[in-house]
Amino acid sequence: TLLAIFAKDIPGTNQVGVFLDDQPLLAEDTVRFVGDVIGIAVAETAEAAIRIASLVEIEYDEYRPHLTIQDSASATGRLIHSSNIACSHQVLKGDWEAGFKQADEIIEGDFSTHHQEHFYLETQGCIAIPEADGHVTVTGSLQCPFYVQKAVARVLDISLNKVRVIQAPTGGAFGGKEDVPSELSARAALAARIINRPVKMVYQRKDDVQLTSKRHPFEMHYKIGVSQTGKLLAADITLQSNSGAYATLSSVVSYRSTMQAMGPYVVPDIRVRSTAYYTNLPPTGAFRGFGSPQAAFGHERIMDLAAERLGMDPIELRLKNVLHPGDLTITGQKLNVSVGTEETLIKAREASKWVKARKSHNKSPRYLSGIGAASCIYGNCLGAAGWSLDGSAARVQIHRDGSISVAYGLTEMGQGALTVVAQMAAEVFGVDPGRITVVATDTANVPDSGPSVASRNVVMSGNALRDAAEKLMPHLKAAAAELLECNEGDISIQDDSVTNTAGGEQAGFTELAEQLFLTNRPMDVMGWWHVPPLDYDSQKGLGEAYFTYSYATHIAQVSVDRLTGRIKVEKVWAAHDVGKVINPAGLEGQVEGGVVQSAGWALTEQLQLEGGRVITDNFSTYLMPTIRDVPEVVTIPVEAQEPLGPWGAKGVGEPATIPTAAAIANAVSNAIGVPVNELPITPEKVLDLLSTVEVP
Amino acid sequence: TLLAIFAKDIPGTNQVGVFLDDQPLLAEDTVRFVGDVIGIAVAETAEAAIRIASLVEIEYDEYRPHLTIQDSASATGRLIHSSNIACSHQVLKGDWEAGFKQADEIIEGDFSTHHQEHFYLETQGCIAIPEADGHVTVTGSLQCPFYVQKAVARVLDISLNKVRVIQAPTGGAFGGKEDVPSELSARAALAARIINRPVKMVYQRKDDVQLTSKRHPFEMHYKIGVSQTGKLLAADITLQSNSGAYATLSSVVSYRSTMQAMGPYVVPDIRVRSTAYYTNLPPTGAFRGFGSPQAAFGHERIMDLAAERLGMDPIELRLKNVLHPGDLTITGQKLNVSVGTEETLIKAREASKWVKARKSHNKSPRYLSGIGAASCIYGNCLGAAGWSLDGSAARVQIHRDGSISVAYGLTEMGQGALTVVAQMAAEVFGVDPGRITVVATDTANVPDSGPSVASRNVVMSGNALRDAAEKLMPHLKAAAAELLECNEGDISIQDDSVTNTAGGEQAGFTELAEQLFLTNRPMDVMGWWHVPPLDYDSQKGLGEAYFTYSYATHIAQVSVDRLTGRIKVEKVWAAHDVGKVINPAGLEGQVEGGVVQSAGWALTEQLQLEGGRVITDNFSTYLMPTIRDVPEVVTIPVEAQEPLGPWGAKGVGEPATIPTAAAIANAVSNAIGVPVNELPITPEKVLDLLSTVEVP
Repeated sequence: TLLAIFAKDIPGTNQVGVFLDDQPLLAEDTVRFVGDVIGIAVAETAEAAIRIASLVEIEYDEYRPHLTIQDSASATGRLIHSSNIACSHQVLKGDWEAGFKQADEIIEGDFSTHHQEHFYLETQGCIAIPEADGHVTVTGSLQCPFYVQKAVARVLDISLNKVRVIQAPTGGAFGGKEDVPSELSARAALAARIINRPVKMVYQRKDDVQLTSKRHPFEMHYKIGVSQTGKLLAADITLQSNSGAYATLSSVVSYRSTMQAMGPYVVPDIRVRSTAYYTNLPPTGAFRGFGSPQAAFGHERIMDLAAERLGMDPIELRLKNVLHPGDLTITGQKLNVSVGTEETLIKAREASKWVKARKSHNKSPRYLSGIGAASCIYGNCLGAAGWSLDGSAARVQIHRDGSISVAYGLTEMGQGALTVVAQMAAEVFGVDPGRITVVATDTANVPDSGPSVASRNVVMSGNALRDAAEKLMPHLKAAAAELLECNEGDISIQDDSVTNTAGGEQAGFTELAEQLFLTNRPMDVMGWWHVPPLDYDSQKGLGEAYFTYSYATHIAQVSVDRLTGRIKVEKVWAAHDVGKVINPAGLEGQVEGGVVQSAGWALTEQLQLEGGRVITDNFSTYLMPTIRDVPEVVTIPVEAQEPLGPWGAKGVGEPATIPTAAAIANAVSNAIGVPVNELPITPEKVLDLLSTVEVP
Repeated sequence: TLLAIFAKDIPGTNQVGVFLDDQPLLAEDTVRFVGDVIGIAVAETAEAAIRIASLVEIEYDEYRPHLTIQDSASATGRLIHSSNIACSHQVLKGDWEAGFKQADEIIEGDFSTHHQEHFYLETQGCIAIPEADGHVTVTGSLQCPFYVQKAVARVLDISLNKVRVIQAPTGGAFGGKEDVPSELSARAALAARIINRPVKMVYQRKDDVQLTSKRHPFEMHYKIGVSQTGKLLAADITLQSNSGAYATLSSVVSYRSTMQAMGPYVVPDIRVRSTAYYTNLPPTGAFRGFGSPQAAFGHERIMDLAAERLGMDPIELRLKNVLHPGDLTITGQKLNVSVGTEETLIKAREASKWVKARKSHNKSPRYLSGIGAASCIYGNCLGAAGWSLDGSAARVQIHRDGSISVAYGLTEMGQGALTVVAQMAAEVFGVDPGRITVVATDTANVPDSGPSVASRNVVMSGNALRDAAEKLMPHLKAAAAELLECNEGDISIQDDSVTNTAGGEQAGFTELAEQLFLTNRPMDVMGWWHVPPLDYDSQKGLGEAYFTYSYATHIAQVSVDRLTGRIKVEKVWAAHDVGKVINPAGLEGQVEGGVVQSAGWALTEQLQLEGGRVITDNFSTYLMPTIRDVPEVVTIPVEAQEPLGPWGAKGVGEPATIPTAAAIANAVSNAIGVPVNELPITPEKVLDLLSTVEVP
């Protein structure tokens, strides 16, 4: 079978845009970046398919590309789409001009962050299998099975109940398998439907790096007004991001960075304006943190600049402004509970012996040392912009032998979801975790539970499991009361056994399961939880942006080699308000991974492009941190419990990666005595900055 | 990979008995029939596996086999198991001896029925796939995924949540894929676990016929006492069946034949004793009708013999004794509603022009014609003996595009389950059937719903769907009320649209689904229904044997070739009380298939064995009816609604096949004037019977 498939062969809609219909599955008459797909070559071997592809001749009319935000913003003719603006958001609270007038000091800064490539170890891949009656099954390395389901249905013009998506074990994702698998899967499904045979599609590394979405580069301007005592009075912030050729998830990245633009601080009067610009580069989309690390780089650098201007300790300045219960966020949302940001600052400061370290940064002839702090706020789950997707399921199936299967709507991609879901399921039913199997996510098994993003798993799946337990528990207790011949009210199920608390009689959970079965009671139930309604004004960006927030403070200790410009991150203290620690090892794993990923972004990872073509498309040119670069990481849990979270818990997957880069930049600024306002902080850049220091 | 696997390699329990632990998966030191499996040869091709198997040398000590019920019952030493009795049941109601004393006539008869092989077009087959963490997935041609799940878990010694069973499209079953797939699947799963690769196992036809279970041969003695006016006063019935080497489902077959031993008739005083005997033949197990066709042959032949003795019309005699609402069954169960047996007799008699046909059976020099009637009772679902398995699920997943997936716990094996489930789902939600997809049965998708047997699907799945609708409807109505801005109480959902009955505004079901989704409402729910508790005394066989009953009368018109002895079934009128017809085409399909299958059993199908080895193991020696043998079938629906059935419906899959053979035997008896008390009625037997007729 030799075959090339083009846009004309698509039975449904030639669209895979996540929120905007701006992205064709197969280009028709325009290509917008090096990586736009024109056709699909299908053959029995990958080699043969590549040969077919090489035989296709394409004629291009070339136009001058827009590669930077500035290019794109200033373009007049030949726009990339009907406009060059992919999306924009704003917060308009109070009278920021008046606020600046009251300020004793006004501090401004321009900050710039760059691309980051996910570089998950497993590249994108999927298998599409044509089934009877026009159905299709897709198995793949992916984060969001329900996005894939929708994309495939639309492209093939079939209903959702004819598309089944099963998540294969997924070798890393970090947001990079949120949007892109919809493209791969739709292409594989299209080919499978046309040839009526299963089709496998796996990206080679260089294609994966060239074609798939990345972290948005941001250009930011921060202006803040403070009182002499260090109180933040006003802020005016502009965020511009490079969206690449297609919007994909730019609107939610832009939304999140806007809502969190001033971090965990109280600012009475504030304006934030955020715009994402299309360019002729690979699209930027979801990446762990989702715009937060970029905004954190802005608000944490400006806080350090302000501290310097005021001659205050940077942590002292933060503590003067940090949110407490009862305070309003920059969107005017009143936070009543679960605001642990102050405690993260205090505990991280204490653990790092901050005061002493801050003073002794210049003791070696060759090496400078520095220490820097950065805090962040992280809105849990999808927020007002994605509220309608913010419900999730956990299905619990108790078997007659007392083993339990749990199917959930979110996915494991290395973050430990399977473990924590099993653990929470064991907790809600009072049984040994060994009884629990968490099955691979499968759209046939659970309802659309939204995307596996936004650090949602613990909160959503935990609450859905609690709902499932609430639905099953009356049946369990009734069966237990029959078994132990006592009142339902006296039944207690915990520690893997069932007890009549009045008489003391006990039975095992296995016996209880058998009794449930023999009496024909329901043993399989769908738990469901959704985020409570949010009162949010999207015009002014005011109101409840997210239902709750996680907080963190990272303190980074670095050494800088004056000779080579090389930075070494020695140690990171990472204090996280997670509401409640569900799995201590899981928390540490998330924090350590997050810190290292953020350090890589801050220091060594550098996506280099030439005319829109990525030239750092492998492990030898795109420098990921190795084990030799990993600092000592001290995870410090803070538990400001969230009543709506399961057992008080909040998300931590993304917060883990948000403040580190800013903390490193602050530490390097502290070490070299020159402000570092741009990422990545390469050795060359360090030497350049050092060269600006005047002879005393 | 070359491998032979033996009993010692089994990590768990070497048992696949369904109800009794009498059947090893792999024989250890005893083989009990030609077909006992000693080892499993595994190779990359079937040919290589067969070669391996041929290299295994086995030494047997031979003993005299017990091949008949008589042999088995009279055996003294060397029993087949610890006893030669596989199971026994009885009904002891009233004083049957006293009843006989009051009778004007006592009629006795011995009736004998033979094996029937399912001869499904697709032989037994499955694929077992070893998964991560010791899990295993089995896909196969099977009826009862939850039986397979249990068998595999037991043999591998793993918990039920590690075994997933998916029904592949199944090319016929008829009960033959109830017990046997557990054996195949456990063997394939064992091999897959040992070699850690997927294993496929498919029986060749000759092995399938030799190894797998069949319909039980019955030897029956009927003795009934009647008054001169034709009232049944007492009965004493002995049923003996040949269970083969293992019990498999003998206990439920024996139970059902005992409960239904006197058909749909009122008998004040009665004893029934039923015993299944082990023999050294292939096991007998589940076969459509489950002991009912055999019992029907007994009770319908004895009724005809009684009519003859009394000089009454056989249908008149039946009408005098038939159950009506308010009557007691032979187990003393009071039937309050849904007793349509009288109507089946009257309608079938009318349609067949019975009275006229009965009289004119000897008009041609070569051909005799005859007409015969037979009625039956059929207890719906599993009854008291299987009550704890008698719950079933139907999971409904509404997608945001308004399409709907339904997962159910029973299976499609050619009977039209997928169609009728889709239809019932459309009905309960008031939507177009085109919106519904019924997915393949998968133990991961639904809870243990018991076996797909006993004509359960319409009743169980229909009621489970109604439960699902009841759970979802409040959410649908709330969302609809939001959509149409009206009161929930005014919402009507039918004909695929949503209406505000107060104001007249309408919306489509697709819009309603989108509204459900956007408002985060539950869209996926597990429906569950179980048969109400049954009050039954298993010692005396008294009480509620089943929660409700289906009834049928078949009238068969036959011609008999005096020259060759060949019987042709010309026409069958089949009146069925199904409570409520859910799908008229489905009903006709079931009835036509049932009639033909029963006619095959009555006339041409003959399992011939030589010393325990089946010699009729292919289509040329085991004579299934072909299209040339199919009579005209007139399906006559009767609707005596059952309040507990969905829309009043009861099961029909098995009733369709129960009375035909008896009706044919009665018709042949009518034609040739000699009682036919033994199946099959081969041409040789007809000629033999004709030869007994004396010269007038």
